[in-house]
Amino acid sequence: MPSGEDDLIARYFKPLATAPGALGLTDDAAILQAGGDDIVVTVDAVVEGVHFLPDDPSDTVARKALRVNLSDLAAKGAEPAGFVLTLALREVSEAWLAPFARALGEDAHQFGCPLLGGDTVSTPGPAMISITAFGLVPPGRIVRRGSATPGDLVVVSGTIGDAVLGLSILKGDAGPLGYDAEAREVLTGRYRVPQPRIALAGAVRGHAAAAMDISDGLMGDLAKMCRASGVSAVVDVAAIPLSQPARTWLAADAGIIKRLVSGGDDYELLCAVPENRFAAFEARAQSAGVPVSIIGRIVAGEGAPQLRAADGREMPLDRQSYSHF
Amino acid sequence: MPSGEDDLIARYFKPLATAPGALGLTDDAAILQAGGDDIVVTVDAVVEGVHFLPDDPSDTVARKALRVNLSDLAAKGAEPAGFVLTLALREVSEAWLAPFARALGEDAHQFGCPLLGGDTVSTPGPAMISITAFGLVPPGRIVRRGSATPGDLVVVSGTIGDAVLGLSILKGDAGPLGYDAEAREVLTGRYRVPQPRIALAGAVRGHAAAAMDISDGLMGDLAKMCRASGVSAVVDVAAIPLSQPARTWLAADAGIIKRLVSGGDDYELLCAVPENRFAAFEARAQSAGVPVSIIGRIVAGEGAPQLRAADGREMPLDRQSYSHF
Repeated sequence: MPSGEDDLIARYFKPLATAPGALGLTDDAAILQAGGDDIVVTVDAVVEGVHFLPDDPSDTVARKALRVNLSDLAAKGAEPAGFVLTLALREVSEAWLAPFARALGEDAHQFGCPLLGGDTVSTPGPAMISITAFGLVPPGRIVRRGSATPGDLVVVSGTIGDAVLGLSILKGDAGPLGYDAEAREVLTGRYRVPQPRIALAGAVRGHAAAAMDISDGLMGDLAKMCRASGVSAVVDVAAIPLSQPARTWLAADAGIIKRLVSGGDDYELLCAVPENRFAAFEARAQSAGVPVSIIGRIVAGEGAPQLRAADGREMPLDRQSYSHF
Repeated sequence: MPSGEDDLIARYFKPLATAPGALGLTDDAAILQAGGDDIVVTVDAVVEGVHFLPDDPSDTVARKALRVNLSDLAAKGAEPAGFVLTLALREVSEAWLAPFARALGEDAHQFGCPLLGGDTVSTPGPAMISITAFGLVPPGRIVRRGSATPGDLVVVSGTIGDAVLGLSILKGDAGPLGYDAEAREVLTGRYRVPQPRIALAGAVRGHAAAAMDISDGLMGDLAKMCRASGVSAVVDVAAIPLSQPARTWLAADAGIIKRLVSGGDDYELLCAVPENRFAAFEARAQSAGVPVSIIGRIVAGEGAPQLRAADGREMPLDRQSYSHF
């Protein structure tokens, strides 16, 4: 007689365990084979009420939990190889779990990152999903965050700041967007379901000197890259790529620029690209269908990266990024 | 200016990141190299109020969180290679974190399983620690749970049932042990700080047909092994190894035998060993300093494993194991 926990795993998660190494989720462990590559390991957790909202649809929670990890793999130049899942729940609810597992399976399939194993536990507190994801890179080819050098271009993928505006909308403040349904959906979608830039992994591996994903805010994450590399940077605020809804919001309220560049949840890539590699980087990104933008330059120095307005003056920031503690 | 989260990682966890692949915890990912072996991946989480008690000392929480995973690696015949940690906390408390990190580091060193990376998040709910651990086995040599065959001996390491008695004591019921300090400490120690049988990994890999660790109760976990293997088993209750305090308790209250064989948290190994391999298995276990006991035999059939009393009669069990849901 299977226990409730085994039954839950068999019903919802066994269909996702398509890789042979998952052993059909019938064992206590899974097998991962590197085939001579290095395995890149990353772990990120999302907590109800902290990283997602209690009434976020469970399919979006599943996608976000996996995608924040895929974003890290992409930033390291790694191709996805699989993941393990820790799921802590107050109760087993078919209405919550079925869409969660279905969406997780769809994303696992789409991004080529199958479920290998997991642990399902009960908690009296908020739901929490922790995912450890694995990627493969040729030996020694992981792209670090601490290897930017002065002169490198600061490059980002996609658009910046949409997720922090989406979160604002979900919390009841749509600013000048009011009831513009399309704009609201674009921005809240960016908060709920990030787009991991897995398609850029090869470009990053091939051409970036340093890379990380932007999860805690552009300027704060750039500061981390700079600290790790022993350099500084200058960012041209006018060059930061913004979505149409973000531009609309910014036009009505110039003050939000600080939130756009320090808010979390972008899950775009931040790369330091040597100038003579940018054309090749951009070409690979274009063929992958991902827009990339030069927003500044790595410079010598130890200070925090500077954000420069169109008139060349530095824009001070109260905070550079989100911190949990 | 590092954020609180970065500062926390630097203070408490960077000293544990001794492996080169941890990249000093300064990156978004870690590197794991298999060197031609298969990587065995296991994940287990512990939740405050579910898997450990709110007033358990944090050093014991750290040890338990890592050791339940090491126990899985040992059961699969794998040698530890490293782990990643997800730590969800309500607050950053020096008094809680310092002993936690120190004990985690001591265990990581003792069992040769260094910290490779992690994620630290805030939660409004109970503390939770999820660990994904990695082990190495020669290609194809993982020991599965579903490969027991009729005739194999059912073998366990150590003693069974101590942890469930320890939990009872921590909840205020010490039964006939009363205030016997030594007995109380032995049993509560088994609940709080399991002894992962890493020293048996080689014996398991070399001689066991099937293996798993006993985390949810002996008879329930044996039932899982039997279901996965398409077999059944008979266990001789008199052959189940018990500690001195457990024997004392059992002598005063024969009814607790059912709790001993169905309670969780033993973290001993359960192995199906072909009869002609047992002598070699036992010899390796002895040289590793770990007692092992034959408690029964795998038999043909599909039914739940039977527990037999000294008179040969079957002892019925209300429940075979712990389930979260």
